[in-house]
Amino acid sequence: MQKLPRAVRRLIEKFERLPGVGPKSAQRLVFYLLHNPDHELEDFAERLLALKRDTVMCDKCHNISESNPCPICSDKDRDQTLLCIVEQPLDMLALERSEKYQGLYHVMHGSISPLNNIGPDQIFLRDILKRLDGVEEIIIATNPTMEGEATALYISEIIENMSKNDGPRVTRIGHGLPVGADIEYADGVTLARALEGRRKM
Amino acid sequence: MQKLPRAVRRLIEKFERLPGVGPKSAQRLVFYLLHNPDHELEDFAERLLALKRDTVMCDKCHNISESNPCPICSDKDRDQTLLCIVEQPLDMLALERSEKYQGLYHVMHGSISPLNNIGPDQIFLRDILKRLDGVEEIIIATNPTMEGEATALYISEIIENMSKNDGPRVTRIGHGLPVGADIEYADGVTLARALEGRRKM
Repeated sequence: MQKLPRAVRRLIEKFERLPGVGPKSAQRLVFYLLHNPDHELEDFAERLLALKRDTVMCDKCHNISESNPCPICSDKDRDQTLLCIVEQPLDMLALERSEKYQGLYHVMHGSISPLNNIGPDQIFLRDILKRLDGVEEIIIATNPTMEGEATALYISEIIENMSKNDGPRVTRIGHGLPVGADIEYADGVTLARALEGRRKM
Repeated sequence: MQKLPRAVRRLIEKFERLPGVGPKSAQRLVFYLLHNPDHELEDFAERLLALKRDTVMCDKCHNISESNPCPICSDKDRDQTLLCIVEQPLDMLALERSEKYQGLYHVMHGSISPLNNIGPDQIFLRDILKRLDGVEEIIIATNPTMEGEATALYISEIIENMSKNDGPRVTRIGHGLPVGADIEYADGVTLARALEGRRKM
């Protein structure tokens, strides 16, 4: 049987390792790139190299940014008494898109996941405690998954342990029906949360 | 609203242009790469650059290969009287996997598609005519799509026009039920083709 050229196989291997890309799609992507002109591939390679070269992680909130501290942490107009804890930079971006939040963020870059050997020390979790000065409310916006819920519980416990009755209020982002969704099709857990989170009209 | 760093946005743009990758998956891929160590990204960039540097297109069959002519074209043990015409290098690879074909190939790198402004001169089609010497059978293995069928018809016509009754036999790869499929779920066109292509048991 005829095999693919080595350069093709080696690039397919790289694409296969990306999340959500299987062997077949990796093949298709590489053959698509083969039809691209040389300068397009050079440009792609250059942008890959620039990805980490031209970005830094903010020392305060651990967001990916062009400057350190990042524009959000250095923006004095933002509410310094609110701190929102998220799992990933993209979660932060989604919250920013809502244009409803004007406080600070803390990006953990993951959640506690014992099955994947990720404990509180493998993510940026404990240094939240160093950022509590002047903070009045901590909003935990981890994903409503097993890992996200466990992480939220863990964070609220360490903050309460440390600061006793003296520390910031710890809240959890609201769960319930997404806007535009049908009650008919909502799952039981979501509806249970929506009932728990009901508010006066 | 806070925007993503430029280096991140620029790489997302690149991934978005790949077939089957939407804006959301492009974002996810780039943030996955951000968590990779530097040398992994350098390796990815290097493999991208190597893709076209270390491969050539075979002058005869237009397959992507490490040598020119490619190992198949230069293999004298293969049946030089059979020529199989395929749309893409991956089609050739699939046929090779069947381990049933020992002839030569011709890769057109596309099919006639007027809607996309691709005519016979935009793909490697007309140079099939230069390869007819000694060929006794031409197997057209284009995809069973509108474009593939039109291309198959076009090829068989130009070969018949050129060689009158003197040229190679032109055949089309068989259509019918895929092995393992259920007749119950087969579509009408496939079943019609399967009936047309019935054989004596």
